[in-house]
Amino acid sequence: MLMGKVVGSVVSTRKNENLVGNKFMIVEVADHMRQGAKQIIAIDKIGAGIGEYVLVVQGSAARIGSGMPEAPIDAAIVGIIDEGLGLE
Amino acid sequence: MLMGKVVGSVVSTRKNENLVGNKFMIVEVADHMRQGAKQIIAIDKIGAGIGEYVLVVQGSAARIGSGMPEAPIDAAIVGIIDEGLGLE
Amino acid sequence: MLMGKVVGSVVSTRKNENLVGNKFMIVEVADHMRQGAKQIIAIDKIGAGIGEYVLVVQGSAARIGSGMPEAPIDAAIVGIIDEGLGLE
Amino acid sequence: MLMGKVVGSVVSTRKNENLVGNKFMIVEVADHMRQGAKQIIAIDKIGAGIGEYVLVVQGSAARIGSGMPEAPIDAAIVGIIDEGLGLE
Amino acid sequence: MLMGKVVGSVVSTRKNENLVGNKFMIVEVADHMRQGAKQIIAIDKIGAGIGEYVLVVQGSAARIGSGMPEAPIDAAIVGIIDEGLGLE
Repeated sequence: MLMGKVVGSVVSTRKNENLVGNKFMIVEVADHMRQGAKQIIAIDKIGAGIGEYVLVVQGSAARIGSGMPEAPIDAAIVGIIDEGLGLE
Repeated sequence: MLMGKVVGSVVSTRKNENLVGNKFMIVEVADHMRQGAKQIIAIDKIGAGIGEYVLVVQGSAARIGSGMPEAPIDAAIVGIIDEGLGLE
Repeated sequence: MLMGKVVGSVVSTRKNENLVGNKFMIVEVADHMRQGAKQIIAIDKIGAGIGEYVLVVQGSAARIGSGMPEAPIDAAIVGIIDEGLGLE
Repeated sequence: MLMGKVVGSVVSTRKNENLVGNKFMIVEVADHMRQGAKQIIAIDKIGAGIGEYVLVVQGSAARIGSGMPEAPIDAAIVGIIDEGLGLE
Repeated sequence: MLMGKVVGSVVSTRKNENLVGNKFMIVEVADHMRQGAKQIIAIDKIGAGIGEYVLVVQGSAARIGSGMPEAPIDAAIVGIIDEGLGLE
């Protein structure tokens, strides 16, 4: 998993039907946890707000662990981090 | 997921039979969402056009979420983004 | 798999229900085993302590191999390394 | 998926039994589609020749989409590209 | 898949029970096949020795293709390469 900060969201009206009802958040990945990309898009089932530090899971775990095994999702916010931990 | 812009397509006449009927779009990944590659090839079941900003999913979610679990697909366009969001 | 050193942990009170009861450790990836990220977050079912050198598995193997196939987990500590092997 | 050019092959006599009968091609990944590695090894069920431009799929889709779900394969050539598209 | 050279091994006494009986080899990835990491840890069911050039598979194919679908394994040596192919 990686840590990051929610910095925005993306709106997509025309999309895969299995994505309807999901929120797409833009997460700024913490510097020391970057594989390369500065930001990723993750669905949010936890209710994270802009500015919150979150735990993001990637890969098949994102859809299966979010209870949407048939959805085209490869990243999901799965926790709100209690303290910022040097992310700023 | 990542955001990108559709910049072209690839034609492959001789291909795996599970790929027949799919369109292969070249997606230019947004700068701040690059893992390393500037462009990736994604199938398109949404009807994205050249120049449109799209949401791309990678990994097993691309084939399962597109309803083609047996197809050799590792990236799919799953949404058209309503606004460009600093992608230009 | 990759080797790394446990350097801390993350606390998340509000999280996906399939994550309840797990510990999230911050693992500093050994220099020569970095894909790009300096640190990753991995669950720990082995009981690794801060400062210990560990073996980390990523992807679907993390949740399936840890006996939590439905959990949103993409990295897990699966072994404690007996010797440091030039990780310092 | 990514595009690349077949530049060689690898011979492995002693190998996992589920790999027997497969050809291992060395694919030079197109510059703008590199995640980091300049070359990858992919199995070929399409009959691609040295010098041909191909479409390569990675991850679980490589084995499942090639009809070998039990084989230790993480990359497969799944199409021959009709035109070079700036790969040279 | 990628090519590399076996350069050592890792010993882990305290580990996930599904890993018991496996050997963890340190594989130095060939320069032109590096995604980023110089070395990875892979299990070995083929009997590769230190100094041998090997074919390594990553992801779910490593555990499924090695006949250990429930093991926390994300990389496996699946072949010994007959010739070095410019790896030195």
